Amino acid sequence: MDYSLLAGGKRLRPILVLAAAEAVKGDEQSAAKSMPFACAVEMIHTYSLIHDDLPAMDNDDYRRGILTNHKVFGDAMAILAGDGLLTHAFHVATDALKHGVPPERVLSVVTELSKYAGLSGMVGGQVDDMLGEQGVTSLEQLENIHLHKTSDLIAFSLRAGGHAAEASEKQLEAFGLFGRNVGLAFQIQDDILDLTGSADKLGKPVKSDERQEKVTYPFLIGLDESRKRVAELTKEANEALMKAGLAKPDRLIEISDYLLKRDH
Amino acid sequence: MDYSLLAGGKRLRPILVLAAAEAVKGDEQSAAKSMPFACAVEMIHTYSLIHDDLPAMDNDDYRRGILTNHKVFGDAMAILAGDGLLTHAFHVATDALKHGVPPERVLSVVTELSKYAGLSGMVGGQVDDMLGEQGVTSLEQLENIHLHKTSDLIAFSLRAGGHAAEASEKQLEAFGLFGRNVGLAFQIQDDILDLTGSADKLGKPVKSDERQEKVTYPFLIGLDESRKRVAELTKEANEALMKAGLAKPDRLIEISDYLLKRDH
Repeated sequence: MDYSLLAGGKRLRPILVLAAAEAVKGDEQSAAKSMPFACAVEMIHTYSLIHDDLPAMDNDDYRRGILTNHKVFGDAMAILAGDGLLTHAFHVATDALKHGVPPERVLSVVTELSKYAGLSGMVGGQVDDMLGEQGVTSLEQLENIHLHKTSDLIAFSLRAGGHAAEASEKQLEAFGLFGRNVGLAFQIQDDILDLTGSADKLGKPVKSDERQEKVTYPFLIGLDESRKRVAELTKEANEALMKAGLAKPDRLIEISDYLLKRDH
Repeated sequence: MDYSLLAGGKRLRPILVLAAAEAVKGDEQSAAKSMPFACAVEMIHTYSLIHDDLPAMDNDDYRRGILTNHKVFGDAMAILAGDGLLTHAFHVATDALKHGVPPERVLSVVTELSKYAGLSGMVGGQVDDMLGEQGVTSLEQLENIHLHKTSDLIAFSLRAGGHAAEASEKQLEAFGLFGRNVGLAFQIQDDILDLTGSADKLGKPVKSDERQEKVTYPFLIGLDESRKRVAELTKEANEALMKAGLAKPDRLIEISDYLLKRDH
């Protein structure tokens, strides 16, 4: 569990939790309250990577610049490390109660985590991805996979931060839309970087999508159109945030702009 | 998920949730409130069976009288079905709020579920079991594995039922001890039945422990001593329950006595 959790990575999801919490009232105290949710979402993300990398799934040897979990500890321990992280994420999330988040909000976060990470969210997206590998033919189908496989957990991250800061329903909705769009843009950018990036910067081999004959955004609509889509989604995300009456949306907007320009 | 969840089985854990909830005040209403926890614990139990049966783990072909999940759907889908059930268990557990269980109690159950099913509980026990397969030499070591691998989730079941009925701290402790002992007795009985039972009644091949050279209770202390231990643990469990000031412990005691005499 430690091996994969502490292997680095961008920490995008926990950063989004903290930034969303801070955005609501513009205070650092809310961000501190949201820390248990930030840790929980990184555990969920890490478990999903460990299981996705297994030979039975994507069969990847490298992740975050080091050997994948099962290459070091074997398949059985990698499955259990994933199960342990997934289960422990919920334990960590409930710690928010001790940080002063009201019980109703903590419960909302637990419910949302199990929804966005579960069968109607990330796990469902992964299933659709595996079932569709032979036959994704439309942009709509591909987008639907990405929305669940990637966007859902990012949307959760924003909403969890919002709950920690006791955001209004309107703010939670804006966070959800921001997360949806940023998540989708993130995934398209991943597809673009797999084609145009450097293995050194990415910490994993490039052009693996082509080798695995994966249907990607660049494959379906070309590189230029894919880049345009990333920019549009980011613009929409930022606009939704600006209209939500947040005290300090600046940092979230910086993050979405940074993601737009990232090379790894 | 449905294939394994609806394959039958004894439903021991959900029955214990409902029976514990009823025991506190002797009312059916508390049992009804505890239903979301009963469903959650069966989902956790089922996910653990799906993952345990994988080729990378115990590599079993049959479970509950039918082909194991991965034999029907493949390893990737079996991993994801397990992940989906594990995640959804927490979703279902939070439904208890709608059934009238106070938010603090629901949160306690979520925290306990992630503890008893997680790295210091069931997952940890499974890890110890796999690491120890080559070298379990003492009864203490074996008992420690069983306490986490089996007893923890059964202890959770009892405590979750207790929370639904707003049990006192003393009652929760008695439930925990009852679950610990019944779980251990259950596991020893499993070891005994693997040696002496019929494949037809068990729904799985017998003598698989011997074939896999597993260290079991009968292997370490013999059949007679193992049977004696099951009876002692059951007696202790029932005594703890009788002293907890429960309105109606009868059904729980019937269950532990039934388990003592089971042949499958």
